[in-house]
Amino acid sequence: MHRQPVLEFWYEFASTYSYLAAMRIEAAAEAAGVELVWRPFLLGPVFKAQGWETTPFSLYPAKGRYMWRDMEREAARLGLPFYRPKTFPQNGLLAARVALLGSDRGWTPAFTRAVYTAQFAECRDIADPQVITDILAALSLDAETVLAEAQAEANKLRLRRMNEEVQSRGLFGAPTFFAEDGEMFWGNDRLDQALDWAVTQARRGQWPG
Amino acid sequence: MHRQPVLEFWYEFASTYSYLAAMRIEAAAEAAGVELVWRPFLLGPVFKAQGWETTPFSLYPAKGRYMWRDMEREAARLGLPFYRPKTFPQNGLLAARVALLGSDRGWTPAFTRAVYTAQFAECRDIADPQVITDILAALSLDAETVLAEAQAEANKLRLRRMNEEVQSRGLFGAPTFFAEDGEMFWGNDRLDQALDWAVTQARRGQWPG
Repeated sequence: MHRQPVLEFWYEFASTYSYLAAMRIEAAAEAAGVELVWRPFLLGPVFKAQGWETTPFSLYPAKGRYMWRDMEREAARLGLPFYRPKTFPQNGLLAARVALLGSDRGWTPAFTRAVYTAQFAECRDIADPQVITDILAALSLDAETVLAEAQAEANKLRLRRMNEEVQSRGLFGAPTFFAEDGEMFWGNDRLDQALDWAVTQARRGQWPG
Repeated sequence: MHRQPVLEFWYEFASTYSYLAAMRIEAAAEAAGVELVWRPFLLGPVFKAQGWETTPFSLYPAKGRYMWRDMEREAARLGLPFYRPKTFPQNGLLAARVALLGSDRGWTPAFTRAVYTAQFAECRDIADPQVITDILAALSLDAETVLAEAQAEANKLRLRRMNEEVQSRGLFGAPTFFAEDGEMFWGNDRLDQALDWAVTQARRGQWPG
């Protein structure tokens, strides 16, 4: 008997295609028998390392215009609501810190979906601490305590270090998926391939239980 | 009765993902009942308009490294051979001029596939006129005459004008597909959606025969 294959799911809260992946990955992973590790991160430092001060969708207008249209079509195809936020990209730093804190406590998937829903289905600004507070409260969490812990030095540093570590593994965009052997898949369009890879590698017995 | 839906397929010979699309689009379009218009173009001027002197896969090494790995996986998944060419990006100017010439004569699809096969399956340099000559000869065409016509001022100018025209329609990468209503799809990953769109629009009777 083998243990369950594991897939790391790295996402940035401001990323439109990360939204599509985040909303459907749990059902897809369950169907494939894959265990997920949810990993919020920040694209800002990743883009800076490539010489960009902001998202390529802002730097390259033709690419940006296409992305919004593609998102409308892809969200419709996947049965997800999608509204273009008034601000883009939004600042997802606070949300990422909170999501990281939740990763040891089990509520990161639900929190993540709620943040994406607030941003892309309810047109709220996820940089607003009140929006995060409302989401935590709806999850029956003590928002004040969680926000304090999320913004404590240790958690901030942990997020920074995880960002650096994953960049050293080759990540350059979001969403990104890593299988246990380090195989990397980029983009919502590669979710199925990433799950297939994780399952196939596990079946080959490279990670016996 | 409606006439057959039409999809424009814009490709650059140096583009790896255009190769994946070119090798499978005819079977996919036939299965969907869609008529194809093959449109070779040059990414160089498109990238220049975005401030890039070469392909983003060279400008952004992390993205480039990932692309080669993703191509290996995707080619295997689609059952296509794939070898990384010694030179990348190759100069596809001559091939594009020849392919454009063939578009009124019916041999562009076969010529296009042969050029991609030479580059990505046989490790040949498509900038070498001898490679193009061999391909034309294998298609039972008079290579000398075709090459002279392809490099005549009228054909060169036509390619340049078509490039400018399609850029004005929003194209920013390759491959790109346009439906008859102007709807644009970018990337080999969107071939199925582009065909679906063409079929759905035609069924709605917006282009009655």
